[in-house]
Amino acid sequence: MAKQQIKHGANTKEISIEYGIKEADIIDFSSNINPNIPSNLENMLIEALKKANSYPDINYKELRESISNYLDVDSSNIIVGNGASEIIYLLAKGLEKRGAVLNPTFSEYKRALNVANKEVISIYRDKDFKIDMENIKQKIDEFDFLYICNPNNPTSSLDDLKDLIKYFMGKDKILIVDETFMEFCQDNEKTLLPFVKTHKNLIIIKAITKFFGLPGIRVGYGISSNIELLNKLWSIKEPWSVNTFGENICKQVLMDKTYIKKSKEFYAGQINYLYNELRKLPNFKAYEPNTNFILMKSKILKASEIKEKLLLKHNILIRDCSNFDGLDEYYFRVAVKKKQDNEKLIKGLRNL
Amino acid sequence: MAKQQIKHGANTKEISIEYGIKEADIIDFSSNINPNIPSNLENMLIEALKKANSYPDINYKELRESISNYLDVDSSNIIVGNGASEIIYLLAKGLEKRGAVLNPTFSEYKRALNVANKEVISIYRDKDFKIDMENIKQKIDEFDFLYICNPNNPTSSLDDLKDLIKYFMGKDKILIVDETFMEFCQDNEKTLLPFVKTHKNLIIIKAITKFFGLPGIRVGYGISSNIELLNKLWSIKEPWSVNTFGENICKQVLMDKTYIKKSKEFYAGQINYLYNELRKLPNFKAYEPNTNFILMKSKILKASEIKEKLLLKHNILIRDCSNFDGLDEYYFRVAVKKKQDNEKLIKGLRNL
Repeated sequence: MAKQQIKHGANTKEISIEYGIKEADIIDFSSNINPNIPSNLENMLIEALKKANSYPDINYKELRESISNYLDVDSSNIIVGNGASEIIYLLAKGLEKRGAVLNPTFSEYKRALNVANKEVISIYRDKDFKIDMENIKQKIDEFDFLYICNPNNPTSSLDDLKDLIKYFMGKDKILIVDETFMEFCQDNEKTLLPFVKTHKNLIIIKAITKFFGLPGIRVGYGISSNIELLNKLWSIKEPWSVNTFGENICKQVLMDKTYIKKSKEFYAGQINYLYNELRKLPNFKAYEPNTNFILMKSKILKASEIKEKLLLKHNILIRDCSNFDGLDEYYFRVAVKKKQDNEKLIKGLRNL
Repeated sequence: MAKQQIKHGANTKEISIEYGIKEADIIDFSSNINPNIPSNLENMLIEALKKANSYPDINYKELRESISNYLDVDSSNIIVGNGASEIIYLLAKGLEKRGAVLNPTFSEYKRALNVANKEVISIYRDKDFKIDMENIKQKIDEFDFLYICNPNNPTSSLDDLKDLIKYFMGKDKILIVDETFMEFCQDNEKTLLPFVKTHKNLIIIKAITKFFGLPGIRVGYGISSNIELLNKLWSIKEPWSVNTFGENICKQVLMDKTYIKKSKEFYAGQINYLYNELRKLPNFKAYEPNTNFILMKSKILKASEIKEKLLLKHNILIRDCSNFDGLDEYYFRVAVKKKQDNEKLIKGLRNL
């Protein structure tokens, strides 16, 4: 059968068939989603259903205004899309002409560049997965735009990009920073949002997917004060790509201050808890996390073997990271989930 | 502000601001949507909300199976997308290399070709907006694939394409037939669905948008037995573009036989009623409709003047068709709506 080419985490349906486990029984550590979900969305859904009889607003004016209020960014500096993915692909399509990625990282940047027939320049992080400015400086003449994921997927590393944005100033290069996982961080010190107004060569990507626990609604957005570039992106964007449910749920969850506060507190506790337990395990190295997932390196078994054993014995699904450019077959990633799930993961890994 | 480049009907939000009319008071004849909506979707929404905490199935296996049952087509021959639009754009991107459109027609075919940097070959329908085989034969060496909308938007004309598909046989050309409006027709004689299995150079596009009255959910699909081409489309498709609400609502509405039957009966009556009334108006020519909208040509006032007058006097919004390639500033399009709305339109046009 014809099918998508890239392996991602989270396809619990296929896993359930392959391993003969009931889908609902799978404890999914492979997707980095907030396990909490904003409440009181039911009434809004009925409202959104009434609106499903019309097209969404092709310019998403109200949705952009909600995001504008949430981030305190001018709504004319916002473009919305079907998840962060659509923004990643729009940029690959709209920008000229050589795109760089900082490996190991989220595979969709490279795929978007390939789909757009753009040249892909690979730059690598250092051995601790921090950004190596020298590596970037060395390649600066080889690319026109650079995707950086910060905090980075799958390494959970967080970098201070203020020196990088200064270095980019005056150079004819675009810096794309995917801050999809920034809201899980304990403070917002590292976000480049305050630089959007003054740095026209900066584009920030964000999503509702992860922090609001709603990957199913497919809403993401890009932020830039480069109106010429935004016009270009709108001019090549497919129409109505965010549906009325995404449009309306998004407006509501961005105002849910209780949910935001509760989630921040939840992660403050669970990230540290899970990391401290995982680093005690002798057969693994746990990389220090800055966001809601942890990169692990196994010292004995391969990630594929660990994945299989955890599934068969404990119904636990991890993300084998061997297909990330810059990692090998001993790396895997686990999401930080609710306490009782995290305990099961620790126990499962200990028993291997 | 940065905004979408193409004018479509249906942006009642902007119209309401521009004309100072409450959005809910606008009687929208500009979008060709079934005014009925499938019922009992509320419970399904609550189910879909629970699923919004996961990604949609990246391969949309169950959704394709629902479509497969609805149309009696093999599910491996189906690709789903964010409305028919995504399929239109995927084809423009994935096919080599010169695309033709049959004007006047839906503007997104040309826009998709432009966005994909493909050459656009314009072919024209005859003066009654029927397909002129000679025009196509004359241009056959100039294009590699051809988009045909059947029934055609905005002309509401319906063509028998069986000769065309025979003519394409053995030629290295792809025929894309957008049958989004076929379900509104009184019979299904003209669909090319029975030819999918035997004609690998045929692709049919359909959508949930129009007939099921749900443009807001953004679900469309393409059908072809050309697995090589489908693989190519999946390989360049952006991931998860149909969200969990689209995925789940679609599965439910396709099984709603009562809605389908009721809608067919509704249109059988109202299309004829509205057409018979409109053709009595001395200052207009009404083109014979085959689907749920009617193309009109004004003999005195321009479409833009009619649009303005109908809005200001009657809150009625029509689709000015002057920006369709092949039409001029005297053409406009009206949807077939519920009886009481259709009566208001007739009265409004009579009073002009």
